[in-house]
Amino acid sequence: MAAMKVRGNAFSTATMRVLACLREKGLEFQFVPVDMSTGEQKKEPHLSFHPFGQVPVFEHGDLKLFESRAITKYIAHEYADKGTQLECQGAAMPIGLQWMEVEAQQFESPASKLVWELAVKPMYGIPVDEAAVEENTAKLAKVLDVYESRLVESKYLACDSFTLADMHHLPNIDFLMGTKAKALFDSRPHVSAWVAHITARPAWVKALTIRNN
Amino acid sequence: MAAMKVRGNAFSTATMRVLACLREKGLEFQFVPVDMSTGEQKKEPHLSFHPFGQVPVFEHGDLKLFESRAITKYIAHEYADKGTQLECQGAAMPIGLQWMEVEAQQFESPASKLVWELAVKPMYGIPVDEAAVEENTAKLAKVLDVYESRLVESKYLACDSFTLADMHHLPNIDFLMGTKAKALFDSRPHVSAWVAHITARPAWVKALTIRNN
Repeated sequence: MAAMKVRGNAFSTATMRVLACLREKGLEFQFVPVDMSTGEQKKEPHLSFHPFGQVPVFEHGDLKLFESRAITKYIAHEYADKGTQLECQGAAMPIGLQWMEVEAQQFESPASKLVWELAVKPMYGIPVDEAAVEENTAKLAKVLDVYESRLVESKYLACDSFTLADMHHLPNIDFLMGTKAKALFDSRPHVSAWVAHITARPAWVKALTIRNN
Repeated sequence: MAAMKVRGNAFSTATMRVLACLREKGLEFQFVPVDMSTGEQKKEPHLSFHPFGQVPVFEHGDLKLFESRAITKYIAHEYADKGTQLECQGAAMPIGLQWMEVEAQQFESPASKLVWELAVKPMYGIPVDEAAVEENTAKLAKVLDVYESRLVESKYLACDSFTLADMHHLPNIDFLMGTKAKALFDSRPHVSAWVAHITARPAWVKALTIRNN
């Protein structure tokens, strides 16, 4: 079987979600950088791998996959007995599904919009939309209120061990901790402890080293 | 085991996603209407079932689940051998994951915003935001361009049979077919045939009868 390949960008949250998963599983892969500054992802040949013109794309032999959460779910399931077990087990399975959907449907939208406004725009000198910051700060605060209540009763979001439901948050959180949105996490003690805990995972630290290459 | 229960609203797309799944599976359930016109979903006791104050909530014995796509994935998996098989099988499994994420990450946002502007707001006499209609029409058109290409090669989005990846689209499509956004679907022949095919499914037709009660 050919080596696993990830076509992506080290500053794309979706790419980093997949790299976090591969590192948790201890799987070897080849990283193929896609230069988003020149719009490489919107041109052929990349469009033939990803019809929406985004990153990442995962390839393994004949299998070609896009959508970061589909890739991580596939890897977690297919390589269940390698590295970290990233799926909730037994009766906790539906709870794992629930908290993965919470990340995708409740957290991702305000978090990624704040990443765009507070982390990406300043890097490129693009003026920040203060109304968007305010709106999404309020939305994210409400989401984190629910997380705070949940994390009082459970060390991790979905079950008693680290799973995809936690891992999917890492790339957006990593960016937000370098912005004023950090206060939203810091002011909620259980959320703050959870953030400290999951961002310190060796697999995540190793995933981030891709930015040094 | 107690009866399955769905707390929801017949005009909520997320609720209808779950009812479509239960009907495809031929599972009996009790429907508990949540009156969203009085904000019942934002008050106790509903908030104790759904901390984000939304619908639906699925209950079965001790299991309480929110997030419609988590509920359908759980039901499709747990009752795999009942009614319609809604999961992609074997090597197609990751492709099923991929197209479910496409619905959730690419289709849902523009589709639900158009449902809000073109179907819900007129019902309540709220002025339509024409800029939002234009922006989301353009976004949805791009998504449907990808669907059109995909449906040239595959009768259904994910594999050669109807699965969750198709089914998750039904509630938004049902609303949009009663608005001017219908033209976006009608103008793409394979998308149009797919819409005609999936909206005619007996399980979906039966799910919609909840609105007559």
